[in-house]
Amino acid sequence: MAGLHVRSLLVTGANRGIGLGLVQHFLRMPKPPQWIFAGCRDPKGQRAQELQNLASKHPNIIIIPLEVANPASIKAAAAQVGEHLGGSGLNILINNAGIVKLNALDAETLEDMSEVYTTNTIGPLLMGQAFLPLLKKAAQGSPGSGLSCSRAAIINLSSQGGSISSLLTWEIAQAPSYRCSKAALNMLSKCQSLAYKEHGILCVALHPGWVQTDMGRSLGLPPPVTLDDSVSPAHVSHGASHIPFRFLLLPSSSTSSSPGSWQHVCQGQHNWSGTTEGFCPLETWTGSQS
Amino acid sequence: MAGLHVRSLLVTGANRGIGLGLVQHFLRMPKPPQWIFAGCRDPKGQRAQELQNLASKHPNIIIIPLEVANPASIKAAAAQVGEHLGGSGLNILINNAGIVKLNALDAETLEDMSEVYTTNTIGPLLMGQAFLPLLKKAAQGSPGSGLSCSRAAIINLSSQGGSISSLLTWEIAQAPSYRCSKAALNMLSKCQSLAYKEHGILCVALHPGWVQTDMGRSLGLPPPVTLDDSVSPAHVSHGASHIPFRFLLLPSSSTSSSPGSWQHVCQGQHNWSGTTEGFCPLETWTGSQS
Repeated sequence: MAGLHVRSLLVTGANRGIGLGLVQHFLRMPKPPQWIFAGCRDPKGQRAQELQNLASKHPNIIIIPLEVANPASIKAAAAQVGEHLGGSGLNILINNAGIVKLNALDAETLEDMSEVYTTNTIGPLLMGQAFLPLLKKAAQGSPGSGLSCSRAAIINLSSQGGSISSLLTWEIAQAPSYRCSKAALNMLSKCQSLAYKEHGILCVALHPGWVQTDMGRSLGLPPPVTLDDSVSPAHVSHGASHIPFRFLLLPSSSTSSSPGSWQHVCQGQHNWSGTTEGFCPLETWTGSQS
Repeated sequence: MAGLHVRSLLVTGANRGIGLGLVQHFLRMPKPPQWIFAGCRDPKGQRAQELQNLASKHPNIIIIPLEVANPASIKAAAAQVGEHLGGSGLNILINNAGIVKLNALDAETLEDMSEVYTTNTIGPLLMGQAFLPLLKKAAQGSPGSGLSCSRAAIINLSSQGGSISSLLTWEIAQAPSYRCSKAALNMLSKCQSLAYKEHGILCVALHPGWVQTDMGRSLGLPPPVTLDDSVSPAHVSHGASHIPFRFLLLPSSSTSSSPGSWQHVCQGQHNWSGTTEGFCPLETWTGSQS
């Protein structure tokens, strides 16, 4: 994680799975963030116990009540985070909270399609809107003009299951509500990257791997990626900042000829596109360099 | 349209724009379909007058009350169509009905995101489910084993505006609700193509061009494509069947090594990818050949 200096970040769905793994990962950094805001639907519930225990030992963790499908809850969370930060901005917003419904195509329903889309796609949109002033403030307060996670970033946890050309685990779970929501989240990430670039905010969509979490295990087969492997650092680098994820869908770097175009970068041993270490073919992801 | 023999088809949103253009196009065929089911939200309304006039002159047009955001309306429509068809199946379902909201990213709302997704993405899903028995019946009753519009097909009207890599008209209208819904519709089309292939049903997503319709004009600049050009035949061919659209996202042909993979085909003078006649680079669309 050399080069990554994060003063503050917020992770949604931080009480379990990848969200909790990310909080632990940032705590283990040589220089941990001053503020780790841990968004959680029900901070007092049984499912938040592990996060509560962690927060009791680490005063830089602030648990924030947050339901990303509820605009009022998002606004209240943004106000609370802004109050904690005083005059300073938020460096990273990680839209991690997500749900899955494992319906087959023929059994999919309007209700499940709506519910999954609201949490997985509309939630990250509304979060981006509500936290934009704090992200802008962080970007303005950082030296340099490049995009990086040390400055200001929105990181949307997507999935290769939302890639039209690869369609990870189709044989195991059709789950059109989930796949459609993640394809839409990739599009949202592209829209955010175009609209927020001028504010100095890096916007990316990530595939964390098929991870050993409750959600990952719900498919009925053992997931290949451990939580530590998924959130471990230095798999992928963007400029000066290393982002702790396996697969990455990036907006254009400054070297790209087409502003707002996307690069696809992936590394590591769990490489579903069939290539070995290094860069994956662009066309294996829904976003490609134009 | 040599080679295309359609006994029956249904078009949603058939009272205006591209939907009405498609009905007129099929009427002009040398051998028009025996049944053209014209789905329409409010058959008695002012906006259905032109369709009503057309139906009064052409007894093969059957106007069907249909609201694609309403599962009960979809079920009733499927029952009504089944009754008209007697024992035979439906050859083509064209999911054309769609809406657009021209919000900028910062002004997008949960309500508009939900409404657009329900009509543009969930509607085509539910339509596919409800009409699957009639499409299967058509496929079973047709000679041959290949996929074609003469046999059985679901055609989803998508948009290049839902392509993550091309993002048509971003400078004119950000419209994230529309873009996300079409990216998700492309994913749905891929899911349908994989799941319904075994039933002999061709499933495709199409970009009709930026067309001179009420929706096309709502962007505030004159659309480049006339309605006739958009629905005119022979721009694109798939096997023996010509599909009257400019851009086409196809599931794998039998020559592809990877079942269920997608080809992107585009032809014509309005080619936003910058190439001339012929095949476009695969990466200009969200779906690419894997």
